[in-house]
Amino acid sequence: MSLNTFGRLLRVTTWGESHGEAIGCVIDGVPPGLTLTKEDIQPFLDKRRPGQSKYVTQRKEPDNVKILSGVFDDLTTGTPISLQIQNQDARSTDYEKNREVFRPGHADYTYFKKYGIRDHRGGGRASARETAARVAAGAVARKILGSNVSIKGALIKLGKKQIEHTRWDWDAIYKNPFYCPDPDTVHEWKIYLDNIRKTGSSVGAVIEIHSSGIPTGLGAPHYGKLDADLAAAIMSIHAVKGIEIGAGFAVGTFSGEENADEMRIGESGDVEFSSNNAGGILGGISTGQDIILRFVVKPTSSIHNVTNSIDTSGKSVKISTTGRHDPCVGIRAVPVGEAMVACVLADHLLLHRAQCGGNHDVNKKNS
Amino acid sequence: MSLNTFGRLLRVTTWGESHGEAIGCVIDGVPPGLTLTKEDIQPFLDKRRPGQSKYVTQRKEPDNVKILSGVFDDLTTGTPISLQIQNQDARSTDYEKNREVFRPGHADYTYFKKYGIRDHRGGGRASARETAARVAAGAVARKILGSNVSIKGALIKLGKKQIEHTRWDWDAIYKNPFYCPDPDTVHEWKIYLDNIRKTGSSVGAVIEIHSSGIPTGLGAPHYGKLDADLAAAIMSIHAVKGIEIGAGFAVGTFSGEENADEMRIGESGDVEFSSNNAGGILGGISTGQDIILRFVVKPTSSIHNVTNSIDTSGKSVKISTTGRHDPCVGIRAVPVGEAMVACVLADHLLLHRAQCGGNHDVNKKNS
Amino acid sequence: MSLNTFGRLLRVTTWGESHGEAIGCVIDGVPPGLTLTKEDIQPFLDKRRPGQSKYVTQRKEPDNVKILSGVFDDLTTGTPISLQIQNQDARSTDYEKNREVFRPGHADYTYFKKYGIRDHRGGGRASARETAARVAAGAVARKILGSNVSIKGALIKLGKKQIEHTRWDWDAIYKNPFYCPDPDTVHEWKIYLDNIRKTGSSVGAVIEIHSSGIPTGLGAPHYGKLDADLAAAIMSIHAVKGIEIGAGFAVGTFSGEENADEMRIGESGDVEFSSNNAGGILGGISTGQDIILRFVVKPTSSIHNVTNSIDTSGKSVKISTTGRHDPCVGIRAVPVGEAMVACVLADHLLLHRAQCGGNHDVNKKNS
Amino acid sequence: MSLNTFGRLLRVTTWGESHGEAIGCVIDGVPPGLTLTKEDIQPFLDKRRPGQSKYVTQRKEPDNVKILSGVFDDLTTGTPISLQIQNQDARSTDYEKNREVFRPGHADYTYFKKYGIRDHRGGGRASARETAARVAAGAVARKILGSNVSIKGALIKLGKKQIEHTRWDWDAIYKNPFYCPDPDTVHEWKIYLDNIRKTGSSVGAVIEIHSSGIPTGLGAPHYGKLDADLAAAIMSIHAVKGIEIGAGFAVGTFSGEENADEMRIGESGDVEFSSNNAGGILGGISTGQDIILRFVVKPTSSIHNVTNSIDTSGKSVKISTTGRHDPCVGIRAVPVGEAMVACVLADHLLLHRAQCGGNHDVNKKNS
Repeated sequence: MSLNTFGRLLRVTTWGESHGEAIGCVIDGVPPGLTLTKEDIQPFLDKRRPGQSKYVTQRKEPDNVKILSGVFDDLTTGTPISLQIQNQDARSTDYEKNREVFRPGHADYTYFKKYGIRDHRGGGRASARETAARVAAGAVARKILGSNVSIKGALIKLGKKQIEHTRWDWDAIYKNPFYCPDPDTVHEWKIYLDNIRKTGSSVGAVIEIHSSGIPTGLGAPHYGKLDADLAAAIMSIHAVKGIEIGAGFAVGTFSGEENADEMRIGESGDVEFSSNNAGGILGGISTGQDIILRFVVKPTSSIHNVTNSIDTSGKSVKISTTGRHDPCVGIRAVPVGEAMVACVLADHLLLHRAQCGGNHDVNKKNS
Repeated sequence: MSLNTFGRLLRVTTWGESHGEAIGCVIDGVPPGLTLTKEDIQPFLDKRRPGQSKYVTQRKEPDNVKILSGVFDDLTTGTPISLQIQNQDARSTDYEKNREVFRPGHADYTYFKKYGIRDHRGGGRASARETAARVAAGAVARKILGSNVSIKGALIKLGKKQIEHTRWDWDAIYKNPFYCPDPDTVHEWKIYLDNIRKTGSSVGAVIEIHSSGIPTGLGAPHYGKLDADLAAAIMSIHAVKGIEIGAGFAVGTFSGEENADEMRIGESGDVEFSSNNAGGILGGISTGQDIILRFVVKPTSSIHNVTNSIDTSGKSVKISTTGRHDPCVGIRAVPVGEAMVACVLADHLLLHRAQCGGNHDVNKKNS
Repeated sequence: MSLNTFGRLLRVTTWGESHGEAIGCVIDGVPPGLTLTKEDIQPFLDKRRPGQSKYVTQRKEPDNVKILSGVFDDLTTGTPISLQIQNQDARSTDYEKNREVFRPGHADYTYFKKYGIRDHRGGGRASARETAARVAAGAVARKILGSNVSIKGALIKLGKKQIEHTRWDWDAIYKNPFYCPDPDTVHEWKIYLDNIRKTGSSVGAVIEIHSSGIPTGLGAPHYGKLDADLAAAIMSIHAVKGIEIGAGFAVGTFSGEENADEMRIGESGDVEFSSNNAGGILGGISTGQDIILRFVVKPTSSIHNVTNSIDTSGKSVKISTTGRHDPCVGIRAVPVGEAMVACVLADHLLLHRAQCGGNHDVNKKNS
Repeated sequence: MSLNTFGRLLRVTTWGESHGEAIGCVIDGVPPGLTLTKEDIQPFLDKRRPGQSKYVTQRKEPDNVKILSGVFDDLTTGTPISLQIQNQDARSTDYEKNREVFRPGHADYTYFKKYGIRDHRGGGRASARETAARVAAGAVARKILGSNVSIKGALIKLGKKQIEHTRWDWDAIYKNPFYCPDPDTVHEWKIYLDNIRKTGSSVGAVIEIHSSGIPTGLGAPHYGKLDADLAAAIMSIHAVKGIEIGAGFAVGTFSGEENADEMRIGESGDVEFSSNNAGGILGGISTGQDIILRFVVKPTSSIHNVTNSIDTSGKSVKISTTGRHDPCVGIRAVPVGEAMVACVLADHLLLHRAQCGGNHDVNKKNS
């Protein structure tokens, strides 16, 4: 019931506010004997780190992760892994003038209505800074999944601009500030987002994540469906308003024939699918094909332009936000989405091993 | 960890296979003292019931619900409510010829790969028949929410055909076999789906659900987000491949100004929003506006037309499904989606009361 | 948070009232491919069944179990197993006169104060009849544990009478109506309990349970301790007021030297312990020795003799209970305790496999 | 499934090893608006702190707690509270010689067998140092319970010496180094334990905890029984081997008449009980009487005297432990036990409010 925890057997509990002393997470349920050092985690945090280009917030945070427990002699011990990241470049004064007002489209209003109190500094607990802890946890989840599993995300739409899928190039993703897989689109996106940034506005985005090397059989019927857990994990990311698996919303227009991913036994003797509309999941259980999902991130709600709002005393006010913000928070959502997918898949790997990892009488009976 | 259970405080555990003796659910955590009789539940089951028009499966199931526990003198007692529905019109012989083969696009293959065994009769546990238990649970959840809360769904896209939103009429939805809110579209849909049905094919659909009367403050930060729990609940429904909240995937193209639902204090002294792109949820917590979500249902994977597949022995085969099936399983997903939303909202009502229902020092301190 | 569910991966949800139509449970998380038929479960129910001797309640219930789901071709499918037992010999009229009064020492009072309503018939949900569902679940748990694991309980104290441990004979326990392991004590117990029964009184008891064949390594640090889960499971049984592991309360008087179970490598090359004060659990994790625990059951609170109490309107009254009851409810607690232990051990078997069942880098690194 | 987390709605996750950089916990589910500062927590840590008398370990740890999140302007915000305590006086070299051997009666052996790896320094995760985090969490739980609830523990048996209950004096408890409630016993205990300490041995103890001011109605039937949750919480404390509620194991010898706590309406109009054998809990639900429980703590397994054991390579060895240890770890278990009871009670306060805190139709129907 921990509302700040996710996962079933691999349990990640995050804590911390944007302008508190630190943020962090506790990861429980990690198998013992996995090699794990700071160097396994830091590269993923560096991908999410703010201040790396003019297209993201200018807050400067080194985001150095500390492993406080659960690792001995560079090996996981099976006990909870506590990770911590100091907050360094918090400028709470930027937020002082908005202490009593609610930013439209932001969690300010709902936190205050729910709890009767809020830490207004930098968004408090609602800040996207919390996602650093998720990314750290995702790095640990990747260790559980092993090197045969690959989880990679890309930005496929930036506001009204989208990539050309036929030009998809995984190698391009880390060579531009957008995680854009279409190198020919990058220049246009730079001009487009720079304009938005200069006007003090912001814009939404769509991210696509591919997971390959996933064994057949992960997931479970109904409420433990792999896609249900993925949907919750992705929707729990700040600013996400939609998630789809495989062909997603397009299947609404498909006929049964168009939708069915036909199967046959290939020359190698393995199962081959004619397509992957299912996105690698049927009946909530992985098929062995790539797991493909997309999610949409709304534009940053902190914008410089003046909008109408109300304050804590119940009066109408005008508001403009002047803190440092991402013109497109969707960019940094790419490593965050990857991390959440990694955690869900590692969790289901453990779940599957628990229920189906033993010897079955079924085999004895059938043999 | 119950993979066949959902909810946090209001816990629903479903059980049963399509062609077993019965299906049912156990609902735990229901507040005591609520009036509850079979008559509170049956009307919702009747909405989902098969065989009511030629546009849905012709299996004839009265779906009479029995309350086996947790109710005394027509009042809930606070103890678990066990509901049960007999299976009557199962025709397992229809499935005998497909015992050793996997229907493409269906859970047949993944269940077999996961468990090494499957109940092939009518899809076994993967059958949409399981959703009758969800609908029954949803009726109980509505009692918890009370009569001020309304949860209503409609089919807004049937395959390639969609409604005209400006003609939306809530009164129309129960007057046609599609839960279509646009009466002028119904005739066209009848012809369209009848053609699909006759060709032995099937088609996808999109459903929209509106919940009104929801108090501000339901939900929680991060992994207890109201939208994260809704996403998991909806994605756990059979054949769902995508879910979006409020403006959903459209926010990807919005600017921050377009997305922000501005607030002001209205003449009545209450908060008024200029729009509802957020779909009634900000930072995972309800705003008090209507909660609006949409989800897509893929076409029924059981189709008469011959497709390529494989069998349990690992050989390529041709397959055609001849059981009774819905040409558009999305139609009966309307009451199912409503039920899942009701369960999630009732769960969060209890969660909110637990954490925030007491007297706060904050008030004393501030006064 | 299901308060009527227990277990972590092997999840058992029970439902039903003493005088309702039926009682039952849903068992989720069972591995697929285990042979399971009614005949695997019924013998354990028969051990718990009422009406088998004059030393237990005279209510006549055949307690025939029905398997409603989760099993196909006599094999578990990995989906939830729904078990159901009809109530047949309920005599609600026996309880009518106590509808408005609370039996001292019984849950009548607290249920009413908590919920504002209670099903007074036969104790409603608080009735020990609920334990039939636990016993059924325990039979399924034994299938998961396999035939190398043995879980056996015995009554070691009946009121003021106790067994002589040196005469312990496992073969004796099913040859007397008390599950007494000391055959020389049985005659004395018969006279003793018969007297108590005739006077309309009741008496407490202590049960000891031994589990052998348990692998080393089940359990977890701290809140997943095997003994913590066993303690909760046993304390959740009706009328239990205490639980101890191994030497239990006696260790309070031990010195460190007396308490330590010394280890050495025996001639066979296996670890040998000099004693088993730990009861097979150290640091919450199984040592491989027998797991030994004891628990105390209070005397049945329903007695014929008149006692002082109050009624639902808040007035003092005199009360005497005339329904059919066990003079020593501890006797039938033996199979119930065994069942709870079986469920906890099977649950931890799955948990251990999940976290520690894979290949560890630790081995590669050390080799 | 977080095995390092306990609680249902009030969720406490602890982390950290004895000789790591720090230990700590994350407390989730705390209601918002409660005043909370370091000064609310530190006094309880000071009661558990080592090095305060010669009767406890001489490790010097200030145990200064830091609040890293979840509190703003000295008020809880409803978001997770992260507490951290640095480890300062760890002397890992004391343990170096025991790196490859297992202390009998200690978790050394079972951790190694379970995980294939262990942090041997100071017991690693199995160290009683973990309990500092529990005590900190207990202080927060007391804030939730409010000032009307009192939870106090005392040492009633020290090895073979026990108090005289008729001399019980709550005021005496904090005036001696044993939390002994019988001032006339203290001198004898000092001599007794000093002798044990000087010989390098250790001794067990029994602790009794009283909770008063508890509302009627906390707890739930069966697997959410208040006593079941208390049993798990207490048994999860290091070295605990038994737990009993109210009259505990003594009820095994009681008749139904002796056991029944008779009720009547007193002159004030309130319910009065003739006794409290139930220890304040009937059917798993609080009666409103004081909740009374006792638990036994085994002697510290780290003793100086030489015992037989084995090492990680599977050879028999002789072992003597020379680190700093408590001659009676039961003494410091008093504040730990109080903390666990506080957490369970606060958790059930929230659970009760969730399910039963609303308006019931039962009232309307009955009125």
